[in-house]
Amino acid sequence: MKVAVDAMGSDYAPEEIVLGAIQAASEYQCEIVLVGDEIQIKKVLDKAGQWKHLNISVQHASETIEMHEHPGAAARKKKDASIVVATRLVKEGLCDAVVSAGSTGAAVAAALFGLGRIPGVERPTIATPIPNLTGTTILLDSGANVDCKPKHLVQSAIMGSIYAQYILDIKTPRVGLLNIGEEETKGNEQALATYPLLKQLQTINFIGNVEGRDIPKGTVDVVVCDGFVGNVVLKLGEGLSSAIMQLIKESIKSSGILTKMASLMVLPALKGLKRKLDYAEYGGAPLLGVNGCFIICHGSSKAKAIKNAIRVATEFTQNNVVEHISENIAQEGVVTNAGDE
Amino acid sequence: MKVAVDAMGSDYAPEEIVLGAIQAASEYQCEIVLVGDEIQIKKVLDKAGQWKHLNISVQHASETIEMHEHPGAAARKKKDASIVVATRLVKEGLCDAVVSAGSTGAAVAAALFGLGRIPGVERPTIATPIPNLTGTTILLDSGANVDCKPKHLVQSAIMGSIYAQYILDIKTPRVGLLNIGEEETKGNEQALATYPLLKQLQTINFIGNVEGRDIPKGTVDVVVCDGFVGNVVLKLGEGLSSAIMQLIKESIKSSGILTKMASLMVLPALKGLKRKLDYAEYGGAPLLGVNGCFIICHGSSKAKAIKNAIRVATEFTQNNVVEHISENIAQEGVVTNAGDE
Repeated sequence: MKVAVDAMGSDYAPEEIVLGAIQAASEYQCEIVLVGDEIQIKKVLDKAGQWKHLNISVQHASETIEMHEHPGAAARKKKDASIVVATRLVKEGLCDAVVSAGSTGAAVAAALFGLGRIPGVERPTIATPIPNLTGTTILLDSGANVDCKPKHLVQSAIMGSIYAQYILDIKTPRVGLLNIGEEETKGNEQALATYPLLKQLQTINFIGNVEGRDIPKGTVDVVVCDGFVGNVVLKLGEGLSSAIMQLIKESIKSSGILTKMASLMVLPALKGLKRKLDYAEYGGAPLLGVNGCFIICHGSSKAKAIKNAIRVATEFTQNNVVEHISENIAQEGVVTNAGDE
Repeated sequence: MKVAVDAMGSDYAPEEIVLGAIQAASEYQCEIVLVGDEIQIKKVLDKAGQWKHLNISVQHASETIEMHEHPGAAARKKKDASIVVATRLVKEGLCDAVVSAGSTGAAVAAALFGLGRIPGVERPTIATPIPNLTGTTILLDSGANVDCKPKHLVQSAIMGSIYAQYILDIKTPRVGLLNIGEEETKGNEQALATYPLLKQLQTINFIGNVEGRDIPKGTVDVVVCDGFVGNVVLKLGEGLSSAIMQLIKESIKSSGILTKMASLMVLPALKGLKRKLDYAEYGGAPLLGVNGCFIICHGSSKAKAIKNAIRVATEFTQNNVVEHISENIAQEGVVTNAGDE
């Protein structure tokens, strides 16, 4: 098991990426190839120490794709960009998976050009795990495709269900269509056209429409929507969680109860809550539908998030998620091509 | 100032509606006409007592529109439905505003048929106030129109800005387009086509694209999106807030610190937080773009929410919001008709 980790291009690169890789290599007994500027990476490795006995190597890449660049054009042009080189290692069979915290657009483009798509999948989709009251909900698409046709949502549903099954260990994941009401007759044109297609699927447990409030409640395991809605949901969830944490702190302070005693009593509870809401605990989000394992991390990922993303990459690979997606997409061929001539 | 209040059709009707009306009539010195089943309404009034010195009267209406009915068809057919009768009172000049907690679809249909639209407004839009870290954000559309053209979002932006100005007392409201990134080049087809139109407007302070996380942060006063996205945002916000409150309680309990003392210290803070997140505090959501004041309340509104909605109705009317919308829509005519032949 060998994971290519893009060490460049994110907010805390290469420091936090390299530290996360060291933690993962020691915890998960996997082999890691750090891809990026060799001098910078080695500097961090040497500073951290304790890595020479681990299975970590460095693959030099002289370029990075910056946030302001057009991701597609940059991924084609910059053949020595760290994300492109990392993807090539998988394409050539030298690694089993890619982990990157660089620009999402660049990651999607590099994955598409480098690995290609699973036959029958038109649009790869980002499947983001988000915490809920009882566990984790997979939200997809969370930003790869902002304009979707119904068949793309159908393909997402099939892929998300497999991911929940093999990575979250849910036997029969409940798959819901994100909508404005529970009834089949509710929704915009896209949702109305998608619902009957999802109902026809044989390989998923479609539970019908779900609403925004069902996500935190945890009454659904896989939530399907287009990448525009998914991205809004994801960012609202992050923003609201941290706003509420801030309100709690202010609220306790302004009640005049921030005596040493009260804070000693309440702070452990708040810390537990924060951990529960912490996206870093959940590792990265896989790009489903490309022909290989590609895990995308938040641009502000620190070592813990990178470590967890590498863990997800190993589970993804060991559980043959790509093969399972490929089989189920083929089996549902008629529905996943809906709307084609 | 006379408000027609639909006393039927919601989860706690007529009890909570009537109680809210009594509170409003005594606090705001406005006149209230309760519309619905006279016998049921009078029973609640008599049980509550203390109302005969207030300016409250009852207008009998023999029908209600149920949640399962097609709202448009029902609003046309049931001429004696409480929501239809309440709207007619405004149309005929006998009342100044309508407040209803019945089905949103029925409310929109009754308002459209009964009051008509402000010239130049193609689609009325629901403007929902939501709490943020520093105050209130107006989200629109939050569910009236799930499939929008760019010009509809433009009309929403103009109307939402006026509402924030006259009801939230914000001199120059910051208006943002809900999107997946800040850059003008980000977004789905709808957002990409809407951005340049919003930039042309003279009567609003367009601050560009905003993301999901900007809503709870409070860095924007008016957030514009279609009714599908708005509805998802609204319900996710409600669900996530109550899920986090539940997590906090469980978290404190499981830390074993729920001694009498700790709970005495922490609970007031939690109550303050809950009040801050409580949608009932903010009153109803106005349906902007119809030719009159029409306030829609949450279907599970209790007395306090109804009272606050009546307050909003009086402020809306006294501040001539309909006239201001009408003027600004006319002034921006070229942009609000974008896409028409």
